[in-house]
Amino acid sequence: MTVKAFRSAILDFVADPFSLPESDSVRYFPDGLLVVENGIVKELGAYEQLQNRYAGLETAHYPNHLILPGFIDLHIHFPQTEMMAAYGEQLLEWLEKFTFPVERKFRDKAYCDRIAPIFIDQLLRNGTTTALVLAAVFPESVEALFEESDRRNMRLIAGKVMMDRNAPDFLRDTAKSSYEESKALIEKWHNKGRSLYAVTPRFAPTSTPEQLANAGKLLEEFPDVYLHTHLSENVNEVAWVKELFPDSQSYVDVYDQFGLVGARSIFAHCVQLTEVEFDRLSEAKSTIAFCPTSNTFLGSGLFNLERAISGNIKVGLATDVGGGTSFSMFQTASEAYKITQLQRQKLSPFQAMFLATLGGARALSLENKIGNFDAGKEADFIVIDPRSTPILSLRNQAETPTTLEELSDRLFSLIIMGDDRAIQATYILGELAYQKQRSPTEYT
Amino acid sequence: MTVKAFRSAILDFVADPFSLPESDSVRYFPDGLLVVENGIVKELGAYEQLQNRYAGLETAHYPNHLILPGFIDLHIHFPQTEMMAAYGEQLLEWLEKFTFPVERKFRDKAYCDRIAPIFIDQLLRNGTTTALVLAAVFPESVEALFEESDRRNMRLIAGKVMMDRNAPDFLRDTAKSSYEESKALIEKWHNKGRSLYAVTPRFAPTSTPEQLANAGKLLEEFPDVYLHTHLSENVNEVAWVKELFPDSQSYVDVYDQFGLVGARSIFAHCVQLTEVEFDRLSEAKSTIAFCPTSNTFLGSGLFNLERAISGNIKVGLATDVGGGTSFSMFQTASEAYKITQLQRQKLSPFQAMFLATLGGARALSLENKIGNFDAGKEADFIVIDPRSTPILSLRNQAETPTTLEELSDRLFSLIIMGDDRAIQATYILGELAYQKQRSPTEYT
Repeated sequence: MTVKAFRSAILDFVADPFSLPESDSVRYFPDGLLVVENGIVKELGAYEQLQNRYAGLETAHYPNHLILPGFIDLHIHFPQTEMMAAYGEQLLEWLEKFTFPVERKFRDKAYCDRIAPIFIDQLLRNGTTTALVLAAVFPESVEALFEESDRRNMRLIAGKVMMDRNAPDFLRDTAKSSYEESKALIEKWHNKGRSLYAVTPRFAPTSTPEQLANAGKLLEEFPDVYLHTHLSENVNEVAWVKELFPDSQSYVDVYDQFGLVGARSIFAHCVQLTEVEFDRLSEAKSTIAFCPTSNTFLGSGLFNLERAISGNIKVGLATDVGGGTSFSMFQTASEAYKITQLQRQKLSPFQAMFLATLGGARALSLENKIGNFDAGKEADFIVIDPRSTPILSLRNQAETPTTLEELSDRLFSLIIMGDDRAIQATYILGELAYQKQRSPTEYT
Repeated sequence: MTVKAFRSAILDFVADPFSLPESDSVRYFPDGLLVVENGIVKELGAYEQLQNRYAGLETAHYPNHLILPGFIDLHIHFPQTEMMAAYGEQLLEWLEKFTFPVERKFRDKAYCDRIAPIFIDQLLRNGTTTALVLAAVFPESVEALFEESDRRNMRLIAGKVMMDRNAPDFLRDTAKSSYEESKALIEKWHNKGRSLYAVTPRFAPTSTPEQLANAGKLLEEFPDVYLHTHLSENVNEVAWVKELFPDSQSYVDVYDQFGLVGARSIFAHCVQLTEVEFDRLSEAKSTIAFCPTSNTFLGSGLFNLERAISGNIKVGLATDVGGGTSFSMFQTASEAYKITQLQRQKLSPFQAMFLATLGGARALSLENKIGNFDAGKEADFIVIDPRSTPILSLRNQAETPTTLEELSDRLFSLIIMGDDRAIQATYILGELAYQKQRSPTEYT
């Protein structure tokens, strides 16, 4: 039995700061102790209160840092790692021109094996400990990804993309093969270690009704896997879906007809949703993955966060690499803030960090396993350096925050100006999984 | 006499890529040589062609890097360096709540002296060699800034903010004192070394008509100084200006009435301009400083770049720190791209880099001194590392671009994913002014 402790300022969430005041949703210890036993949180509290009980315990001390639960990225594409920042197109043309040719490379298992560790390294370097990932259409890409995440003991959710039409030959499966391959992957990987599976039709336009029906069949046969797809990202896409499925009431209705809209369904984007569609997602207890850097990069539009939250829809934050422009959940939250500002909405630093941690866990129905430091949860966490660059050093000259107001201000500086450099260390199940080397250019 | 050479891939612009094809506006040498004599560009060409003529010359070689003219930041606030990322407000409330209290500190010369080198370091670290800077209302802040930029031999333009109403007592000058103090600063600093002066009324709401008239008087007395102010950033601001100046036709007209709209006038933001106002700026040959990260951060809106360009208005890029969220012109260009995408407009990588270099120089009527590598120009330039982070290393695995298409793609990756780390070195008048230390975490 291994017991370890981590001492620093420690922040997590015990409730939703969108519905409760910060004082009831934020848990913060300016000098805290996180005790981990065999990778599981044993206790969290003020160092002063716990120090006697755990005297003599091996303790990693991070003064002037901040410990937070690991980030949860609710929508990201493994095979698009190398093609971020592709120029000049909006969604449908971008897929055709840039994305599909790159995804083709992932039919080669050796290539997948080369990129998987790079992808996982990027997640960890940015403090992301759990992600909901689209692999490519090729089962090899899922195998490579799970092999690598399993090796790192990460709680990762992924799935093989299903797409049997409106895509180049070299990327198409069939309704039948996608069903069989997905099923085999579920049987092999779902609940193996910390891996979980998501049935992943790319989006309505690239699936025949038969394939969508097979996706629904998989959800029936394996009721605890996820459904992960795109929804209503771009105006032209929505128009196309209407053409392709003339009998459906709406884009959401297309998925609904095949039994794909449920409490374990995660829909990325939702920028163009109608009122009726918002209501349906709320009723079905589905989740929206808000992808801010992608929505601006591809010019898709401004996601109506206020509408989703007020409609009681679960929302998480997502990078959407490679339509998104950064693996960093700080930069993602920064863009989310800007999108709300442009709509005269509000997104507080605590709300943003909730979305990236406990909110994401709830969206995945994993709040009993990850998302905060309640005893019994898996000890995935990050150590944040609030002075990771010269400009952040100047901005955050003050000592460790002692009030929620000071903490909120510090978090906001990290959201707006932080990047991978702000992640000093990432821990998976209490074990060091990534550590930043000290930059020689740092001010102190 | 000192002659030095710099060998690398070298890019600059010889014309405007908004009006001419890339092949006529972009100058690129995959293996180039830049020869500098006493801080002035002597010659630029292909290494192969020039090597014999300059054999034996001291040559700094940067393989796998890219040399570009130094960036020009067309609008930035020196006293807001430490208050970037202030939460939750839009323009007018943001000024009142966050900005004014911080600017108060700059009445103390010792404080100005402490922050000035940090500010200049941030510019250089991000590859910015020329900036148009608002200091605070206190002449001390201008003194400190020019003393520091002069010490670094930088071509910097700055001015004392003029504001005699609608601001706290502790930040107000008077029409008379602002005139006298500005005049004294002009006489001391304008054209001293590389320093240039800008008459700088903050914006119409914080100046009485009398003060604006005095600004106009300064422009008459010193016809080669600049006029630098804010214009039409935020909807509430525009409404307020209408209230304050009921006899004016428009916001632009307020400035026009006092003789402030001319070919050496730079107006920041211009997000809410009417057609008539765009036309007037075009006619007057005035410049717009496009401040993308500030416009999204403060929720001001989406600048209509296409309208400005098609109206033949000079445009430059600006960080607008501290309303802006980064000192990096890459991140600024990235946000500019996203703003155009959201409006279904285009901004190519070459166009963006033109705005940040030669375009900025033209906007400042300094194209005879800076902005590209024509012989006789001041040798301010930057060395860019296209593989400055692991994700950029993956993205830019290929060798040095040999075609404009490859180069455009590489530039775009830097715009979207680059930051201060992409700046390997910054040279002022051919002398090393900043050099990045190699990060220990870098992939190679």
